[in-house]
Amino acid sequence: MATLKLRRIAIDTYKENVAYLHRNCEIYQSEGFQALNKIEVHASDDGLSVVAVLNVVDDESIVEPGQLGLSEQVFEQFGLPEGADVRICPATQPHSFSYVHRKIAGEALSHEQYLDIIKDIASNRYSKIEITAYLVACAESGMDRDEVLYLTRAMVKTGEKIDWDEPLVVDKHCIGGIPGNRTSMLVVPIVAAHGLFMPKTSSRAITSPAGTADTMEVLSHVELSTRQLQKIVRHQRGCLAWGGTAKLAPVDDVLISVERPLSMDSPGQMVASILSKKSAAGATHLLVDIPVGPTAKIRSQATAMKLRKLFEYVGDNLGLQLEVVITDGRQPIGRGVGPVLEARDVVQVLENDPLAPQELREKALHLAGRIIEFDPDVRGGRGYAIARDILDSGRALEKFQAIVEAQGKRKRPIPLGQLSFEVKADKAGQVASIDNFQIARIASLAGAPIDKGAGVDLHKKMGDPVEAGETLYTIYAEFQSDLNFAKEAVSHDSGYRLIK
Amino acid sequence: MATLKLRRIAIDTYKENVAYLHRNCEIYQSEGFQALNKIEVHASDDGLSVVAVLNVVDDESIVEPGQLGLSEQVFEQFGLPEGADVRICPATQPHSFSYVHRKIAGEALSHEQYLDIIKDIASNRYSKIEITAYLVACAESGMDRDEVLYLTRAMVKTGEKIDWDEPLVVDKHCIGGIPGNRTSMLVVPIVAAHGLFMPKTSSRAITSPAGTADTMEVLSHVELSTRQLQKIVRHQRGCLAWGGTAKLAPVDDVLISVERPLSMDSPGQMVASILSKKSAAGATHLLVDIPVGPTAKIRSQATAMKLRKLFEYVGDNLGLQLEVVITDGRQPIGRGVGPVLEARDVVQVLENDPLAPQELREKALHLAGRIIEFDPDVRGGRGYAIARDILDSGRALEKFQAIVEAQGKRKRPIPLGQLSFEVKADKAGQVASIDNFQIARIASLAGAPIDKGAGVDLHKKMGDPVEAGETLYTIYAEFQSDLNFAKEAVSHDSGYRLIK
Repeated sequence: MATLKLRRIAIDTYKENVAYLHRNCEIYQSEGFQALNKIEVHASDDGLSVVAVLNVVDDESIVEPGQLGLSEQVFEQFGLPEGADVRICPATQPHSFSYVHRKIAGEALSHEQYLDIIKDIASNRYSKIEITAYLVACAESGMDRDEVLYLTRAMVKTGEKIDWDEPLVVDKHCIGGIPGNRTSMLVVPIVAAHGLFMPKTSSRAITSPAGTADTMEVLSHVELSTRQLQKIVRHQRGCLAWGGTAKLAPVDDVLISVERPLSMDSPGQMVASILSKKSAAGATHLLVDIPVGPTAKIRSQATAMKLRKLFEYVGDNLGLQLEVVITDGRQPIGRGVGPVLEARDVVQVLENDPLAPQELREKALHLAGRIIEFDPDVRGGRGYAIARDILDSGRALEKFQAIVEAQGKRKRPIPLGQLSFEVKADKAGQVASIDNFQIARIASLAGAPIDKGAGVDLHKKMGDPVEAGETLYTIYAEFQSDLNFAKEAVSHDSGYRLIK
Repeated sequence: MATLKLRRIAIDTYKENVAYLHRNCEIYQSEGFQALNKIEVHASDDGLSVVAVLNVVDDESIVEPGQLGLSEQVFEQFGLPEGADVRICPATQPHSFSYVHRKIAGEALSHEQYLDIIKDIASNRYSKIEITAYLVACAESGMDRDEVLYLTRAMVKTGEKIDWDEPLVVDKHCIGGIPGNRTSMLVVPIVAAHGLFMPKTSSRAITSPAGTADTMEVLSHVELSTRQLQKIVRHQRGCLAWGGTAKLAPVDDVLISVERPLSMDSPGQMVASILSKKSAAGATHLLVDIPVGPTAKIRSQATAMKLRKLFEYVGDNLGLQLEVVITDGRQPIGRGVGPVLEARDVVQVLENDPLAPQELREKALHLAGRIIEFDPDVRGGRGYAIARDILDSGRALEKFQAIVEAQGKRKRPIPLGQLSFEVKADKAGQVASIDNFQIARIASLAGAPIDKGAGVDLHKKMGDPVEAGETLYTIYAEFQSDLNFAKEAVSHDSGYRLIK
């Protein structure tokens, strides 16, 4: 049978496999295939195959009639060289998609059914619209807690798992949504200074204005090899950079690439996402932080309590020692929002600077204390005092500096954005509320986290008195276009509410 | 603010707007934008804007760092020339998507909310994953019948509408799923010969092995201008080609491009899809055919009855005179499946050939009879006999030939595929069942409808006795690769069940 020549198309289609076929391909009818959405690409020589959504091309400089183009991700997954002979055929829908249809019809799925779905997603056999159908089906009829457990296990099983060979591997996770909430950079050095083993998996932010990795990068390198990082963790008992999570519960990253643009955040998927990553990363003890507030992800104590129970049920059944703390999520934590600004806040706390934001300090101590109590030698209730001693004595700063040195300290820290704009109060009053979501959005539009010096610096927090014309916050940016996007957003909604 | 130069990218991304930005674009951070999924593209000069999903490009020959590429559909929608100055910004999620979230939460939506969603889809502001979320949300919690009505109205309102200025405009529609069911090519000439006005909107098949337009194309032209077609309809009272439906309820085509690859076919969307197209096409009277059988779309009388009630409710409220017939969908209709083979069956019936498939004839007469009874001058129950007289007398054939001539008769009809393969019975017995879905799939794999000579010719139907080794059906194809796909499918499941 006639074959096509494989060609790499230098397009990054963001977690979706896309194939490109010229409209006038003489061997295959491109339009017939396209309407069916997906094709299966086979190597002529062996059993290798990949599945991809089809785009039809009318430009021979992109793909010629006798060629089959593959976007970057699927070309890499396929692993064959350019020019290799391939055949294509219409892809049959993955068998596991029939379970998605059952879920749409309101049925609960079994452990095996979740495993089949997750295996197919892991091998890129689901297109994004199929993944969306799966996610919405699960969000809508909901998942019972056993289904969340099945899903979590399936997500762990389809990836690698780290075994640290340590009796106690602690970790923490916040469900997110609160700008400036950079507690990990305080908690890790405190806990590691106490001697617990905390190989924190830190991520870069994607839609939020800063992640721990982005913020840490202001001060040190964070892109280290897995081997370097493991060595640092072994030596320092903690680290603040960890790139090696892509192979841990890899399906999580795929699901997030769809959940994020849809703003979908169902409790079942959230719990499975967090616990599968942490379990695969080898954690034995985990502290989960659920901030509650009117503009947080979780808006009521009752919802937070339900989510806590779900975390506990799944954690217990995975053999993970898990504690949940429900925290104040009514406004951003600290003052800075964005990598450079958040790094400044963290360093102020570590240096016991009198100007340091006290709520960031208190929250970090509270969380670190709870983690320290995972230590069997620490008496219940003593964790906070131990954490405070470590911070006040300078031992946390010392540990932080050691981690920074080990990861590779930057010669000069990254500076704040050169462009700025002050958002001022249009009347006098008192700050009644600060919208987490809007502040995060303004900082993102200003360029954070990709432009590290971009962000928002809050001068006023809830309860503070404000004069008319006084600055509420300053926006920093590196590009004029970004500053304009942020100003445009402020003109609709500054995120602040003042009362007389 | 710095701008990008617009560039047309000759890629057909199949009903999804896609924009292409070079990874090293100095003005905008491509990766940050991509994670957010969608961007809004603005013309520098005026208020024009379009929304597109972003792909990141690493090849300057596709798009250069200072350029913004747009895929064919969105380039056309935007309407600006190449080289025009554009700016981009992150697209905010369409406001109407918050209603999709409500639907996911199980709420019913209002008329205004459906209208907002459909307007945004009509202007390509929804990406495919957002459309999927909408469709699954509606399928899962279901739509109550008022919601289906709201949706239908919204779909009509966002497109053009034809006014024929005729008191009675009849049409028919079959919900599909039955191969060989080419009744329109018989019903239209019969009904038009009776004198009723029947501007049938005929479509090309996409996943089924043949549509009326594909089959008609074997004998005559079907790609005519809207003006030519209107002239033919006025003169002949009917036609068998109609390309002018793209602007009628245009959202329907967008929804189908997602429903089809997901094999989603929820009753609410189906009813809205059919009735919006027919209503926009100016029909006043509509006959809906619901085939029922174990491998049809509708598998039980009870389900068919529920669907009938839904059609009636929405039709009545749209002011459409609507009749539903529930027909036998246990096996393919006629013998041929695929354009050339189906055209052969149709012509045999029109010519009163003794070899003509009798069930196709009977079904067409039954449907034509019901439509003829829309004529106020026809007494209830007399339609069938009138239809039979028209067919037996040769008047239907005459009308058919007149329509073929008017549309532009082909000098030589398209021939059957040159390659063939006979599927034989492996044992003696009687045909107990024929799987509609599998036969359609085999014909599609063989190349139908794009290769018009491809398809399946059934030699045995349900109840027929079969000797071991006797041919059950013949597969025709034009390409060896397609014949191989079809044979491969047969080796898994021939679609026939024999009993002793």
